[in-house]
Amino acid sequence: MATPERIRSIAEKIVPLVRQGERMAVVVSAMGKTTNSLLDLAGNVARNPVPRELDMLLSTGEQVTAALLAMALNEAGVPAVSYNAFQLGMVTTPSFGNARVVDLNVGKLAKELEKRGVVVVTGFQGVTEDGDLTTLGRGGSDTSAVAIAAKCRCRCEIYSDVAGVYTCDPHVVPGARKLEYITCDEMLELAAQGAKVLHSRAVEIAKKHSVELYCASTFSAERGTYVVGTLPEWLEQPVVTGVTSDTNQMKVTVNCIPGDTAVFAAVFGALADKGINIDMISTVSENGHSHLTFTVVDSSVRVARETLEGVLSRYAGWIVGVDESVAKVSAVGVGMKSAPGVAARFFVALDKAGVRMVGTTTSEIKISALVPRDEAKRAVEFLAKEFGLADETDD
Amino acid sequence: MATPERIRSIAEKIVPLVRQGERMAVVVSAMGKTTNSLLDLAGNVARNPVPRELDMLLSTGEQVTAALLAMALNEAGVPAVSYNAFQLGMVTTPSFGNARVVDLNVGKLAKELEKRGVVVVTGFQGVTEDGDLTTLGRGGSDTSAVAIAAKCRCRCEIYSDVAGVYTCDPHVVPGARKLEYITCDEMLELAAQGAKVLHSRAVEIAKKHSVELYCASTFSAERGTYVVGTLPEWLEQPVVTGVTSDTNQMKVTVNCIPGDTAVFAAVFGALADKGINIDMISTVSENGHSHLTFTVVDSSVRVARETLEGVLSRYAGWIVGVDESVAKVSAVGVGMKSAPGVAARFFVALDKAGVRMVGTTTSEIKISALVPRDEAKRAVEFLAKEFGLADETDD
Repeated sequence: MATPERIRSIAEKIVPLVRQGERMAVVVSAMGKTTNSLLDLAGNVARNPVPRELDMLLSTGEQVTAALLAMALNEAGVPAVSYNAFQLGMVTTPSFGNARVVDLNVGKLAKELEKRGVVVVTGFQGVTEDGDLTTLGRGGSDTSAVAIAAKCRCRCEIYSDVAGVYTCDPHVVPGARKLEYITCDEMLELAAQGAKVLHSRAVEIAKKHSVELYCASTFSAERGTYVVGTLPEWLEQPVVTGVTSDTNQMKVTVNCIPGDTAVFAAVFGALADKGINIDMISTVSENGHSHLTFTVVDSSVRVARETLEGVLSRYAGWIVGVDESVAKVSAVGVGMKSAPGVAARFFVALDKAGVRMVGTTTSEIKISALVPRDEAKRAVEFLAKEFGLADETDD
Repeated sequence: MATPERIRSIAEKIVPLVRQGERMAVVVSAMGKTTNSLLDLAGNVARNPVPRELDMLLSTGEQVTAALLAMALNEAGVPAVSYNAFQLGMVTTPSFGNARVVDLNVGKLAKELEKRGVVVVTGFQGVTEDGDLTTLGRGGSDTSAVAIAAKCRCRCEIYSDVAGVYTCDPHVVPGARKLEYITCDEMLELAAQGAKVLHSRAVEIAKKHSVELYCASTFSAERGTYVVGTLPEWLEQPVVTGVTSDTNQMKVTVNCIPGDTAVFAAVFGALADKGINIDMISTVSENGHSHLTFTVVDSSVRVARETLEGVLSRYAGWIVGVDESVAKVSAVGVGMKSAPGVAARFFVALDKAGVRMVGTTTSEIKISALVPRDEAKRAVEFLAKEFGLADETDD
């Protein structure tokens, strides 16, 4: 929802659907640069804006878009109405900036939909039981939309500047193909591994409540991707559905710590208390000592190091090291469960690419390798080729 | 509330007061050009924005200011919280764009004030019984503030870019004096006659609920004006408190209409149905015919003419004329009630100024004359001099 022109063109797409008898809640996000402008304003009045007031401020962005879209629809003869979080009764937890949806007033929404055809709803925002405004964090509007679809037992279509889910990032592998279907489980792994199409929480809610989810481009009529519980039976199940790389990772190594479980518990407990997400944990033990490595996102590395040094201060001999230039390369696919030899093909491809591996983890439907950051692109290209995920291009 | 810098400086003024134990609801309006930017956006998506959605859109402006001021106060150590119309429970009539306050939730506000010292409230907005957002029209934030003061039984201070109430417009008469006190009745007459300090509805509520009202400049420490029910007894009561001119008026004349009351009733009824405010009505009858004149604001004149022509279409011989270049010049003062000869002095002053009068009306505390628009300034200068309202200047 970048500009008033875009809002008009979206209204033009909605009108014929409503005329055909469709009923829809349209969940909107803020226009283009609105959120950044509001953050700039906040930065001008306070170095550390209180979270409650930041949410009060940011939630205005969605209200502006919602009102404008409802106006554009009315101008075109559809008696749409806009709803903010209060009017929708979108109740969330009181975690400002990162609230989770608890409930919403479906009865009111359904009645208005019946009467008007369209209700335009502000995404990204909610209200606590005490009546404070909250926001849902990154990807919050996707989450709002899926939550509404789950409650209303209807399908959810998400339109953004991304045309669907691809086998790999088209910027990295020009021959990347758009997927017609992907399972929620695969989508969750891809989202966690750095694909930015849909936010994980939206997919989690879709999975839990069996919401039929579809994502496509706002701009083109091109077909998008269905995110489904299980793939249609007629579809040949690929072994690997997609390959991603996440270059926003750093590797932390702690050498020579005591090998008992209490130390690990203390380390991971302390990191969790600081809200630091860690991944690709691996440990090696020798002679009663352990070596530990894990990855964190770039922005957490300073706090992670301080936390480690704090926890370990009562021991001696340990060394904390950080490798700042790694990337996580992953292959994801539900087909892996039943196809042996995928890991072998994964490692062979990296070997062919001449990419060094500095760590690896696997799940039932995913294999990840940690590689030097400047070799990530090459790794993805070779993996895409190995698993037949890209078309030939002249590139 | 023009800029983030202004918001910070307002927070700096509030903090020491709270530290001294004051408890206050701070009612804010939108920042500088926000409302116009939002109207531009609306104009980009719809030629005739639906009123409900326009209010949904415009109300975001106050929410932005409220959140920013609350942030700035928190940054300074005052645990302020911002409230929008939903959170305050500011219930209004459902007249979008021009709603009237019906009630508000004082209990919640009082509790928060006790706890926090400051609650920042969005002015200008309300919510209907059905949960739709509304706005209160021009001067709406003043009205919000006075309504809250009336309900909380506390005093109301209004800070704006106007430093108080003047005997006449300082732009017209450089020697104009700021009044220390003015009565609500006089203020209402001045507001209706074009003075733009306080909106009439705010003064009406203040009068009805005996709210102690004070208005002063946001920018300077200069003393402002108290708007009171009755002037303090020690104060010498001036005959004329202020002189105004309203150049946003046109004079409509209808000659040769039938002289019976039914025609007048039909004419004024039709104008009222169109929401057209008329003023300075005067009629003259001769030989069973009547001549009617009244004034309307510039923007209403086209509709007024069409309405008249519609109502009169069944009669013959009438002529509608419009004088587009008139102004209304008024002298207001509660002292008039007990001081004879004010009207005479008023007309003498206009005569001295060589200003033609093309109409006149009076109330208990006001005399108005309709004069050629380009002579209004001169009329005000001579009236100010006659009633001792201006100091000598070199100008």
